Order: sequence, then structure tokens, then C-alpha cells
Amino acid sequence: MAQEIERKFLVTGEGWKALATSSALLRQGYLSSNSKATVRVRSKDDQKAALTLKGAARGISRAEFEYDIPIEDARELLAMAAPHVLEKRRHIVPFGGLIWEVDIFEGRHLGLMIAEVELEREDQPVALPDWVGAEVSLDERYFNASLARSETVPGVK
Amino acid sequence: MAQEIERKFLVTGEGWKALATSSALLRQGYLSSNSKATVRVRSKDDQKAALTLKGAARGISRAEFEYDIPIEDARELLAMAAPHVLEKRRHIVPFGGLIWEVDIFEGRHLGLMIAEVELEREDQPVALPDWVGAEVSLDERYFNASLARSETVPGVK
Repeated sequence: MAQEIERKFLVTGEGWKALATSSALLRQGYLSSNSKATVRVRSKDDQKAALTLKGAARGISRAEFEYDIPIEDARELLAMAAPHVLEKRRHIVPFGGLIWEVDIFEGRHLGLMIAEVELEREDQPVALPDWVGAEVSLDERYFNASLARSETVPGVK
Repeated sequence: MAQEIERKFLVTGEGWKALATSSALLRQGYLSSNSKATVRVRSKDDQKAALTLKGAARGISRAEFEYDIPIEDARELLAMAAPHVLEKRRHIVPFGGLIWEVDIFEGRHLGLMIAEVELEREDQPVALPDWVGAEVSLDERYFNASLARSETVPGVK
């Protein structure tokens, strides 16, 4: 098991674009999100896929188990998860000695942009780039499992 | 993906004992069981483990995806699934050209005994041994996910 410690921010500027080193189209669906566990299937560029189980969040930390699965299985599991599915293009953006992930949502979540950074400790100092705004780490509306269920996008005008 | 086609019967006699070729202690827990999917973690003799996703049942058939996972992960996932966990000793019993599995439940399900047989087609003829009674294939009370949630055992006096 890994422990996932993650902070999330709304993206407010475009400065990340010049820093991005790569990107991939993520398609992810939720087979379950209850109080005990979230079960996510995710494909990457429709080529690789993984099944991820996450425990209940405690602040910005949660238990995470991830297993690679065949892309054919992922396609069927995504169909099974529908309509609780979302699509986003994830850009990898090194900044301040950390790897940021800038997610530009597509489809019905178009307009939503979230930057995530994974940490090794909860109290790890993070240099915030000037292209992020409000922190939404603890805002359940921005959990991907919530977004996959929602018809509307929070905070997008 | 595999398609699981399975029939289940209550065990009423002891004739299977002389036919059993092996057995293993299964410990299984449910991280989710909703209308879309059931997510099961199962350990076998606390040595091997698998994560299994099953789609919604259509009669005696359902989609099934199974992935081996490390036993250490399974122990943590079983703890995460608690109290929705059950234990049973599964005996492998060849009969009438098919492989039957006779499950003798333990713990709070003590007294429950179910025989399962996996088929290749829904209409495949099955020779019923004289140690099984009522068929419970479609009885949701006997779904393992239901049993894992229940405090009491259906049909056990």
C-alpha cells in the first residue's frame, strides 16, 4: 500500500503551459465511492490502464492501492461505470522541486482546471506557483469521484 | 473479461466429503456492492489473494474481472472492508463431470453450507448430487456480498 498525500488548487493562470513536459488524456470512472473506499478505473491515452482503490480520506491523506490492468478490461469497466465517468488532459509540470499535475477537464466539466501536487509528508512546504488560486484539497465538490457524479462544474462561470 | 455463470444450492448431506480433493480457507470482504458493481477482495489460506470486480447479475450470469494482488495488500483491504467480511472453507468436489465447490461457512455464518457449480452456458445440463437441496442461485440473501453484510444466516435453524 501507498499513502497518498495530495494538495489541490484551482488553476487561475496560464504560466504552467511553458513549463509542461508532457500530457496524456485520462478517462476515469468510479465503480464505487462510499465511506469505506473509492474504486476507480483509469485509462491513459486509451493505451494503459489501472484500477485504483482509495480508502477514506483523513485530511489530505488516504490509503491507495493501484494495479495495472489490461486496456480491454478498462474499456469494459469504464462502460460499466458510466455515466460516472470523466475525461481530462493531464499536463506534467515541474515547479519548485515538485511535480505538479495540471488537469484540464473536458466534456461536461469543460472549464474546470485543477492543479495537484503529491507530497511525502502532510507538513511538507510547498512553493505555490502564481498560476494557482484557491486551495480545494478538502473541498469534496472537487474530489474526482464527486465530479464524475455531478452534472455541473463547481466554481466555473 | 470473463463471464461468470454459476448455480448455487444449499447443502443437505455429507456425501460430498468422500469426493473432496482439496480445500482452502477463504476470507473475503466487500469494498462495494451497489447496482453497478461488486468489488471483492479475497485471500486464500492467507497466502494468495485476488481482487474481483463483478457486474450486475443478469439471471445466473455476470461479468467478472479478477486480478491477483499481494497478500499484504489483501490483509489491509480486508481490514478496510470490515465488518463486511466472511470466512468459509471451500472444498473442491468433482461430481458428474463438473467441479463443484462446497463452502462451509465459519464465524457468524456458522451452519451455512452452499454448493456452487460454474457453468459454460446458462442452459448447460447439470447432474445434481443427492447431497444438495434447494437451489438458491437467484436468492439475493445467499449472495456472498449480502452474507458479508448480514448479521444472521438465512435458512439456518
